[in-house]
Amino acid sequence: MSDTVLAPYKKRLEAYLDGLPMAGAPEPLRSAMRYSLLSGGKRLRGCLALIACETAGGAAEDALPFAAALEMIHAYSLIHDDLPAMDNDTLRRGKPTNHVVYGEAVAILAGDGLLTHAFELMASSPHPRAFRALGEIARAAGVGGMLAGQALDVTLEGTRPEKAVVEQIHRGKTAALLTAPVTAGLILGGATEEEIAAGREYGLHLGIAFQIVDDLLDLEGDAALMGKTLGKDLEEGKLTWPACVGIAQARLDAAAHTDAALRALSPFGARGDALRAVAAAILKRNQ
Amino acid sequence: MSDTVLAPYKKRLEAYLDGLPMAGAPEPLRSAMRYSLLSGGKRLRGCLALIACETAGGAAEDALPFAAALEMIHAYSLIHDDLPAMDNDTLRRGKPTNHVVYGEAVAILAGDGLLTHAFELMASSPHPRAFRALGEIARAAGVGGMLAGQALDVTLEGTRPEKAVVEQIHRGKTAALLTAPVTAGLILGGATEEEIAAGREYGLHLGIAFQIVDDLLDLEGDAALMGKTLGKDLEEGKLTWPACVGIAQARLDAAAHTDAALRALSPFGARGDALRAVAAAILKRNQ
Repeated sequence: MSDTVLAPYKKRLEAYLDGLPMAGAPEPLRSAMRYSLLSGGKRLRGCLALIACETAGGAAEDALPFAAALEMIHAYSLIHDDLPAMDNDTLRRGKPTNHVVYGEAVAILAGDGLLTHAFELMASSPHPRAFRALGEIARAAGVGGMLAGQALDVTLEGTRPEKAVVEQIHRGKTAALLTAPVTAGLILGGATEEEIAAGREYGLHLGIAFQIVDDLLDLEGDAALMGKTLGKDLEEGKLTWPACVGIAQARLDAAAHTDAALRALSPFGARGDALRAVAAAILKRNQ
Repeated sequence: MSDTVLAPYKKRLEAYLDGLPMAGAPEPLRSAMRYSLLSGGKRLRGCLALIACETAGGAAEDALPFAAALEMIHAYSLIHDDLPAMDNDTLRRGKPTNHVVYGEAVAILAGDGLLTHAFELMASSPHPRAFRALGEIARAAGVGGMLAGQALDVTLEGTRPEKAVVEQIHRGKTAALLTAPVTAGLILGGATEEEIAAGREYGLHLGIAFQIVDDLLDLEGDAALMGKTLGKDLEEGKLTWPACVGIAQARLDAAAHTDAALRALSPFGARGDALRAVAAAILKRNQ
């Protein structure tokens, strides 16, 4: 994925994440949490929160605890997703998964710890709109958002792929946690209600486009760049977009959702350019 | 445990928990979450929040989402604690544990769902001090609180029991999540900073007394009343209070912590009577 837009935000966020004290966390819990939280990745969720805050005229600084919280929630979901009882993955971003390194018990607690710490961190923000932003992120991560997608993914694996179901999974698993950074960032930055609604529309389409591209990369991507075994979705009967509509149509759909995301940004005028660049980069990403 | 103090609060809280919509949660995730959340139990954490709110002059009603959140956090911790990779328990309160009924994958997600929903629920409260109360609960459930205790419990199992370590585990695993309902309830009810500090002291001692009694009941309790296999702590080399200091001293320590909890309530005068009754009931409980 082209890093030109995200690079400065990513650098700032990574320094913030690395400096988090995680006060009171005993070993090996602390190391296990840091192992997954600091293992790289695109930082798309966190960067989106910083960019959205600036888009609305706020300082990225104010959104840092929320950006970090989003990355913690993403990291926890990957740790639990990789567990033997779930996807049973041993490799993530080219490194052994959390439970391979720390054992299952500590990996489960590390996931729980990152999820809880995300809320602890947001709850310590002095920002006057922190409570509303926290609510946006809680709902997105919750049983009507990301966890709904995860649960459908787990229980429907191996069934016949239907587009409506796959879209529901994508909305939950991916789009919810790509929408929340946008709306939370806009809220913190002081956006109007109309702008927040536009951001929600943008995030939803961005999230679906992102997941379709992810599904395509699992079929056609470069394993070395992706840092994981490819073709696993198909082998395990995962409900993916290309499995429903075919590769050619999936490419068209990713482009259409990217267009819809870009259209949603019209209320922002030129101020929306950074968010536009993110959408364009997602469509063209190769990892 | 004597139900005279808790009974009316428990009834109200159970009705509230049963009526929660958990909007958007797909099956079987929703059923798995409700299975553990509505499987009975003392509701001590939730009731304490309601009682503490009233103690400070507030309406118990205002503390209901927080009381429910505390019960959700408690329920999630039990689901994850019972998993094969953790304590591998198949029975809890006389019923099969969550993963036995729903499978490990759904049980992991049900725990994640309850934890996240706790924050979603608190974040939807319109109470002017909701954000501060949420922060108290987040810190108590976090890596400097409950999860620190869980992690130490997992990693130190089977080592030689030392009192300082066992006290650290008890403070984390149990006392943190018995202190937060008191402080959060007092905050919501409009308590002074001095009263909140007194409530924190009360909750800490109450929590340690509660866990010592719990350890004693595992050795000497009535399996039918407790609804679980007893003697398991000893068999598995769990770090318990009686294993450190012996049964007779453990009984004295439980009484001493109960006394300390009662002393801490002096700033409340007669308004502290309900909290006093809870402390007395905990020392005398038999399940």
